Amino acid sequence: MGIPRGTYDILPNEVVTWHYLEKIARQLCERYAYEEIRTPIFEETALYERGVGETTDIVEKEMYSFTDRKNRSLTLRPEGTAGVVRSFVENKVYAELQPTKWYYFGPMFRYERPQAGRYRQFHQFGVEVFGSDDPAIDAEVISLGLEFYRSLGIEGVRVGINNVGNPEIRAKYFEKLIEYFTPFEAELDTDAKSRLYRNPMRILDSKHKRTQEIATEAPSILDFLDKESMENLEQVKFYLEELQVPYDVNNRLVRGLDYYTQTAFEYMVEELGAQASTIGGGGRYNGLVKELGGPEVSGIGFGIGLERVLLALKQQNVSIPTAAPLDCFLVSMGEEAKKASVRILGELRKAGLKAERDYLDRKLKAQLKTANRLNARYVVILGEEELANNQIQIKQMETGEQTSIAMDKLVSYLLEGK
Amino acid sequence: MGIPRGTYDILPNEVVTWHYLEKIARQLCERYAYEEIRTPIFEETALYERGVGETTDIVEKEMYSFTDRKNRSLTLRPEGTAGVVRSFVENKVYAELQPTKWYYFGPMFRYERPQAGRYRQFHQFGVEVFGSDDPAIDAEVISLGLEFYRSLGIEGVRVGINNVGNPEIRAKYFEKLIEYFTPFEAELDTDAKSRLYRNPMRILDSKHKRTQEIATEAPSILDFLDKESMENLEQVKFYLEELQVPYDVNNRLVRGLDYYTQTAFEYMVEELGAQASTIGGGGRYNGLVKELGGPEVSGIGFGIGLERVLLALKQQNVSIPTAAPLDCFLVSMGEEAKKASVRILGELRKAGLKAERDYLDRKLKAQLKTANRLNARYVVILGEEELANNQIQIKQMETGEQTSIAMDKLVSYLLEGK
Repeated sequence: MGIPRGTYDILPNEVVTWHYLEKIARQLCERYAYEEIRTPIFEETALYERGVGETTDIVEKEMYSFTDRKNRSLTLRPEGTAGVVRSFVENKVYAELQPTKWYYFGPMFRYERPQAGRYRQFHQFGVEVFGSDDPAIDAEVISLGLEFYRSLGIEGVRVGINNVGNPEIRAKYFEKLIEYFTPFEAELDTDAKSRLYRNPMRILDSKHKRTQEIATEAPSILDFLDKESMENLEQVKFYLEELQVPYDVNNRLVRGLDYYTQTAFEYMVEELGAQASTIGGGGRYNGLVKELGGPEVSGIGFGIGLERVLLALKQQNVSIPTAAPLDCFLVSMGEEAKKASVRILGELRKAGLKAERDYLDRKLKAQLKTANRLNARYVVILGEEELANNQIQIKQMETGEQTSIAMDKLVSYLLEGK
Repeated sequence: MGIPRGTYDILPNEVVTWHYLEKIARQLCERYAYEEIRTPIFEETALYERGVGETTDIVEKEMYSFTDRKNRSLTLRPEGTAGVVRSFVENKVYAELQPTKWYYFGPMFRYERPQAGRYRQFHQFGVEVFGSDDPAIDAEVISLGLEFYRSLGIEGVRVGINNVGNPEIRAKYFEKLIEYFTPFEAELDTDAKSRLYRNPMRILDSKHKRTQEIATEAPSILDFLDKESMENLEQVKFYLEELQVPYDVNNRLVRGLDYYTQTAFEYMVEELGAQASTIGGGGRYNGLVKELGGPEVSGIGFGIGLERVLLALKQQNVSIPTAAPLDCFLVSMGEEAKKASVRILGELRKAGLKAERDYLDRKLKAQLKTANRLNARYVVILGEEELANNQIQIKQMETGEQTSIAMDKLVSYLLEGK
């Protein structure tokens, strides 16, 4: 009975890093006035078919779908946006004060080939803003994501932006792309071939070498944008500059999901001895709320895969705050002293101190060793004699200094030493 | 496309309460020297069949099981303990310094009839301690759970404890129970009947009225306990008293899961105009680690359903700390002032302030209204004239006091007012 393939346990020494990620993300979202939303781990399968797009890898190949006992088809969420939009619509949040600024955190599931930094249960931090078309919001969302990486201490993150127009523009651009790629059809990789007539924009972000070469000369979406889209891109660029967000315009940036319109963006990080790789991204999806049964309300957001962020933290050797040390380890000798130590332990903890004792009836020497292993700031020693005199021995582990104090002064002594 | 039956969205005004629950639980666990562990959302189905027990309601009726594309049977975790034990064994944590003291938090899944406070995706906070048989650990675990309710502000929580012996004792007790219940077989409810020969202890916690009446006179486990188990119960009681945990011994307390041995306990809360109801519980499971492929290591833990805790908080009208208010809302008039306000907003947030502006190009009056709705402490007003003079108007919302300050003094002014 092993752990399911492609999943992993987060043990306590790793959880510390997750707490750090979550704290930084929460603090940032708080300042930017985003509120948390939590949607279920699974949704109706139809939500993703409509909300992510039937021609995407996610829906075609990667979903964990199953039927419940009433034969309803459910799917473990493969991404965060569709569920959040469903919630926005179902709870009629569009009727409240706009814009709605939400963030989410949590596990997502995709049946993929496991590889370094890529798991079948992975974790995302994301934001979604509904109800505003203001290019200043696009810039805010992009800058919030960048601030997240920066606050964590990750260096060299670059922002790529693009405008992918609207459905009409994309339809025209699709035609031109198909025209362009068709003569090369035999040379394209299998994925690109299968996408050629269904979603040729996605060939542009192929990882396949020959396909990439061919794509270099493909027409650019920027030549197809209407005045409105061009102006929108200019405005987003302006606000990014106001917010001191450095960026590159990348007209090959298309994103894997069908529902994006206008602004698309991604975050890239340079890796040691390798090409820069994507560690997050997002964009506008002005048609999605309506597609999922709501009124015509625009949306924009990003999703950041946290396993990728962890990899970047490790590669850049960023130091993570460690867990708070133990304030006090209680060492006791003899049955009566043990009993007293349980009571004292309870009092220390009620006073807000992080305290521990031996629970394996170890000998004195082994108890002291445990105190050392647990990195206790103070060790308190309680024997029959101390008990009789209402005194305890207290040792500061860093200095080795040892004193004797009255038992009822212990809490205040430790609180002072904090 | 609605939310799946039996699940629910946690919207921002409710998330505040969840943050409170999580913060209190984390702080307590920290003090008690428990560390967090995170296991996957799904596990192999066989883990629950073995680790929870094939005759339990959970395994028989309530699991969300499905097969992946390689035909492996997986199950969304219906409870927390089995996965945590699997992780303890698989990561060989038993070879490290003992005891291991872990806590977990997260969604669990059971296909049950949805009713008030009972959902198909619900959330648990739990702890597990491995590697110590010390009755003082039993008392620590029980007291940690009680402290959780108390720290949240829930009143009137009572602790029930029992000792359910070991497998040999239970085998003898089973026989006597079957002997006792058999003459009443026709009068028992359907569930009790089906359990009579498989797991008669579970008839004792039946919710069915006539079954309950019959069970009143059933033999008590306490009359079957050996000297060791009796002494263990006495020791646990002693340490509970040392830790000032009030408790009742309840010899009908059996818990729904098969793997419990020795100490069993539960937390009850009195409800307005109703019988006390269970809001958490746990016990020892000294055979489980071995059952799941590890060495002979004992374990004890509790699981607390957080939706039940939320109900208790509501019923007792406990007030929950609300989200921090907005430090500043920026109102701007005119295109140039808007642009400047985006830059200023970025600066305020970078300085750690919670700040917001209008993203819908509202008129002045509507912007002020929004600032009010968002409960901003200060409103900053920026128009063409202010911009020309590098001055801004700042209004403290509580007092109505309004002053004009230099634009580059805004951050320090707001930080001082915090």
